Amino acid sequence: MNPADRTFLSRAFTYAYRGCGYVSPNPMVGCIIVKEGRIISTGFHHRFGGDHAEVDAIKRCRESLEGSTLYVSLEPCSHFGKTPPCADLIIQKKIKRVVVGFEDPNPLVAGRGIARLREAGIEVEVVSKDSHSRFYRKFTKYITTPYPFVTIKSAQTLDGKIAETDGKSKWITNENSRQLVQHLRTRNDAILTTSKTVITDDAKLNVRDKKKFSPLRVMLSSHLFFNNDLFFFRNEDKKSVIIVPEGAVAPQDVKAQLDWFQIQIKYVKPDSNGRPDLDESLRMLHEMAITSVLVEAGAGLTSEFINRGLFDEMVLFIAPKIIGPGKNLFEGLEYFGLDSPMQLKVNSVRNFNGDTAIFLGRV
Amino acid sequence: MNPADRTFLSRAFTYAYRGCGYVSPNPMVGCIIVKEGRIISTGFHHRFGGDHAEVDAIKRCRESLEGSTLYVSLEPCSHFGKTPPCADLIIQKKIKRVVVGFEDPNPLVAGRGIARLREAGIEVEVVSKDSHSRFYRKFTKYITTPYPFVTIKSAQTLDGKIAETDGKSKWITNENSRQLVQHLRTRNDAILTTSKTVITDDAKLNVRDKKKFSPLRVMLSSHLFFNNDLFFFRNEDKKSVIIVPEGAVAPQDVKAQLDWFQIQIKYVKPDSNGRPDLDESLRMLHEMAITSVLVEAGAGLTSEFINRGLFDEMVLFIAPKIIGPGKNLFEGLEYFGLDSPMQLKVNSVRNFNGDTAIFLGRV
Repeated sequence: MNPADRTFLSRAFTYAYRGCGYVSPNPMVGCIIVKEGRIISTGFHHRFGGDHAEVDAIKRCRESLEGSTLYVSLEPCSHFGKTPPCADLIIQKKIKRVVVGFEDPNPLVAGRGIARLREAGIEVEVVSKDSHSRFYRKFTKYITTPYPFVTIKSAQTLDGKIAETDGKSKWITNENSRQLVQHLRTRNDAILTTSKTVITDDAKLNVRDKKKFSPLRVMLSSHLFFNNDLFFFRNEDKKSVIIVPEGAVAPQDVKAQLDWFQIQIKYVKPDSNGRPDLDESLRMLHEMAITSVLVEAGAGLTSEFINRGLFDEMVLFIAPKIIGPGKNLFEGLEYFGLDSPMQLKVNSVRNFNGDTAIFLGRV
Repeated sequence: MNPADRTFLSRAFTYAYRGCGYVSPNPMVGCIIVKEGRIISTGFHHRFGGDHAEVDAIKRCRESLEGSTLYVSLEPCSHFGKTPPCADLIIQKKIKRVVVGFEDPNPLVAGRGIARLREAGIEVEVVSKDSHSRFYRKFTKYITTPYPFVTIKSAQTLDGKIAETDGKSKWITNENSRQLVQHLRTRNDAILTTSKTVITDDAKLNVRDKKKFSPLRVMLSSHLFFNNDLFFFRNEDKKSVIIVPEGAVAPQDVKAQLDWFQIQIKYVKPDSNGRPDLDESLRMLHEMAITSVLVEAGAGLTSEFINRGLFDEMVLFIAPKIIGPGKNLFEGLEYFGLDSPMQLKVNSVRNFNGDTAIFLGRV
């Protein structure tokens, strides 16, 4: 890897990002083809089921690929999926050298694409595993475990409150922070919340900018008795899902409305409190090909995710105001203690016009 | 003000800082004298009672000052204090121009120094009030109110805890954060805590680096019955003070030890809980010429400072760990509410090797 390699590879990652929101549950992949120091083609995985990035770049190229170098963010595939193996196409086109950003964590590929290229005499360089593991962390979680990647998002005052004692709540954070939340939503396949939040806040849980990707809205509920006027039940984009315990039944009027708006109902085993079991619910979302979930809920569900260790990252907004007695975000936690705390690592800290956002990951 | 002026003036502030910890209750002042674009002398206020910065710079100068420009961080004085007025000396030395960083908030000066210089035909430029108000915020509070400048320092876990439910506590933050606390201590005239913290933590409340300035240790207590073995009562630097309600009496053995270690006892009016009244205690410290106080205490005193609005700044450390049930830092707060929160402003946010430090000020 020389400095030029790094530049071209990072360009491939920039292209990969263009598929964000449209390729899931596939990974985002970008590709750059370089010949004699000059970029002769670029490509990326545009949408689920479409051409892989390498195929896209090769198809777009108007010159001979012989002797060129191909930079690709993720290891080329070697198996027949929705498309033929990219490794074969690279070999066929007499590409001389391939620089790979990240070895595919998919057990169906897992180094086999690289091996195939090498067997064909192509020089292959793979960047160290850590360099781009963050870029592919959501895909890695999805492809190697039965769970989606879970990010908890929450907002509290400086004194740790999410609402007043009587439950009264409104915007805690400022407009800049809320814009980031909008952005976070476009970066996840689904938003997960509870019926309590939907009912209390009449939360829209949407992405305001219609041109951007909008995630699935998923509500956990122990029942199907709802007030039909809530925003959640009036979305026409067919992107709403309710997860309920097995056996939950909807009254006739609710059922008619759910059918009308094509709101999906999914059934999972109940937990000891009669609510949809959290572990089962996440597995259900995984089965639905949801690779990543943004949790936007109150103290109860947030605490349950922490208690059961079922999250991967957390974004905590802290507004610089003090309100005194109220509901604490973390009041439903189980005992960890000072001797054995749940240790997180801070990925970054950002100041949004006064609000502090701490981005944390599991250790 | 041209760019060169700004450079020289900022140099004067750098010199001013050298007096930090030694000039209190005087302000830190630095001075640079420039002739034909060349620095011909520098000076600063070294210690309380010593030469003012201007005098220091003028005394050190080995050339004629005639026609030079003098840059000084704070308005030169025009009154006889411990030293004769600096304005007169500047006039006498035929300095041509004076650039002032901040107008003296001291009612005894308050523009009169500048007026005196101008009357004598000296060209005076004063930087806008806001530019350096932060540098002189502690001095301004001290000189214009009957209170010292109060900074609350606290450390909590991500879930807002300062101790476990049974009160068990130990280091919440990492070594890097604790180094910052050491630094904060050298920047304040006094550290304020409670007998509860002194007893529970056997807190040393000192500055480890003996070469640096060490602040006064002040303990608020409702009584004088103590275990003599605590660190607080064995400090030999004569920098310990106990504030108690009027009428508090020490048992014979405690009294002997307080005398031996020359620990001062100060009496103030009690509050309704029989503790030294906080407002009165701060006024007492002001009378003792304490310009700035760092509050390092538990939930009780921290909350009281917030409830009574008696603080100016807050440094909140957040360690990236979760411990579950425990003692919340802010559990003693009164009701402010979402509609009328105590709004603070974030001056800066820093990441100390994983710990987040939020530096806040009053709005």
